[in-house]
Amino acid sequence: MPQSFETATALTRTDAGFTASLDPGWDVGGGVLNGGYLLAVAARAAVEVSPHEHPVALSASYLRAAAPGAATLTVTAGPAGRTLQHAVVVLSDATGPAVSVQTTTATLVPGESSYAVPMPAATPVEDCLSIAEHAHLAPPGMPVPGLSERVDTRLDPVTAGWALGEFSAKPVIRAWVRFADGREPDPLGLVAFTDALPPTSWAIGQLGWAPTVQLQTLVRALPAPGWCLVEARANEIAGGWIDEDYCIWDSTGRLVAQSRQLARSPRPSVDQVT
Amino acid sequence: MPQSFETATALTRTDAGFTASLDPGWDVGGGVLNGGYLLAVAARAAVEVSPHEHPVALSASYLRAAAPGAATLTVTAGPAGRTLQHAVVVLSDATGPAVSVQTTTATLVPGESSYAVPMPAATPVEDCLSIAEHAHLAPPGMPVPGLSERVDTRLDPVTAGWALGEFSAKPVIRAWVRFADGREPDPLGLVAFTDALPPTSWAIGQLGWAPTVQLQTLVRALPAPGWCLVEARANEIAGGWIDEDYCIWDSTGRLVAQSRQLARSPRPSVDQVT
Repeated sequence: MPQSFETATALTRTDAGFTASLDPGWDVGGGVLNGGYLLAVAARAAVEVSPHEHPVALSASYLRAAAPGAATLTVTAGPAGRTLQHAVVVLSDATGPAVSVQTTTATLVPGESSYAVPMPAATPVEDCLSIAEHAHLAPPGMPVPGLSERVDTRLDPVTAGWALGEFSAKPVIRAWVRFADGREPDPLGLVAFTDALPPTSWAIGQLGWAPTVQLQTLVRALPAPGWCLVEARANEIAGGWIDEDYCIWDSTGRLVAQSRQLARSPRPSVDQVT
Repeated sequence: MPQSFETATALTRTDAGFTASLDPGWDVGGGVLNGGYLLAVAARAAVEVSPHEHPVALSASYLRAAAPGAATLTVTAGPAGRTLQHAVVVLSDATGPAVSVQTTTATLVPGESSYAVPMPAATPVEDCLSIAEHAHLAPPGMPVPGLSERVDTRLDPVTAGWALGEFSAKPVIRAWVRFADGREPDPLGLVAFTDALPPTSWAIGQLGWAPTVQLQTLVRALPAPGWCLVEARANEIAGGWIDEDYCIWDSTGRLVAQSRQLARSPRPSVDQVT
């Protein structure tokens, strides 16, 4: 039974900040922890020291791969404003800093959008492909990530041709996601979803891993219970770099989160960028 | 004659980092300096201490409005890797820190994209509307920004209905831009363009200023000389927040930069978020 998301992101307050125990099961293969998971741990630390309830904007630099196990977090918070609070959170393992995050916390309140991009058409979740149940979907040589046992990920077959060797002209991957432990989505949970899909370039046949360099996540609304739809697309792949752009809608079709990351283009093996 | 971009972003090295003199002419009205300009100053500091030539990813938290005039920049750089270097740059005025930026520098090299979103159809620049020459385009009560004399901005009339009181259903604004001083675009210059247009919500009739909270800029390629096309769009406006998503193409139609910011929704007057 995998650890719950609550346990995997739990923090203990110390004189210097917080400690956490990074769950080795949130890996993307090869012992490398998922960027969205690490960002959620950092976001929780920011919320802990804020008068506001939710992470609304997070920008992370991934300095090197964080080791599973004991980690420390330091939070340097700015003044607590009426509307929001800025802070810098640094997550370190025994070797030193691994992720540095600029955080903005605020309190999201229920209410309609005055404008929002609609949820795209997607295959019903029951007709989608579960990554966890289809280990063979991973490209040859790519380990099946523990991540897929933490985030129940159902690939829309329309954008999953790559899993069958039928590559698309467009680097777009769409999937329904929810926590495998039954936890309903909330702003912190959405953070973990903003880097949860396979590299977008797999859609066009550029397989291999894509180490995240910088990731910005915006949480836009309180999500309704149920499955979230994630659509990830690259805008440009060039010179060894790729961007990945996520939009996440909740079960009511409301846009609830966005992210954009710059990553190194896929490489044959999981490793870190130096 | 306005200061050149080079002068406005010039740095002097000190024992503690750098000093700069922030050009009051890069304002967006009411004495508030443009976020893209401040980000370019910070990016220049990151490049100065890096073995790499270009800013490729920048994520800024705007803590409060920076005052024009004397500023200091501190740069805390991580290890210089083969491919990239991470750093944190803090820009302060006499009152204290105003902008905190996570920077990633690398060296972009000429070469084709293996995938890139194409430039959208746009009205030829000679048939577009110059903001500087059409002060009346600003909504009533909004000052004409000095920014428009630094960045020559030609609004595509297709997305400039708001300037004539004809609002659109979609929050999209498109414009051709170049430096008014004749400087050709380069990675540092692109950074200044990633927050250069009027608030995207003006397109749908939500006038007033939209103070930037966090801005992420990615520079994707070395731009060709000439005009750049900028397309800015919001994905959601809700709960007092708006995102703005920029794509920038160079004169050859190549996607060269992207940005996304979270801002407070338009308010009646220029002020800061606290």
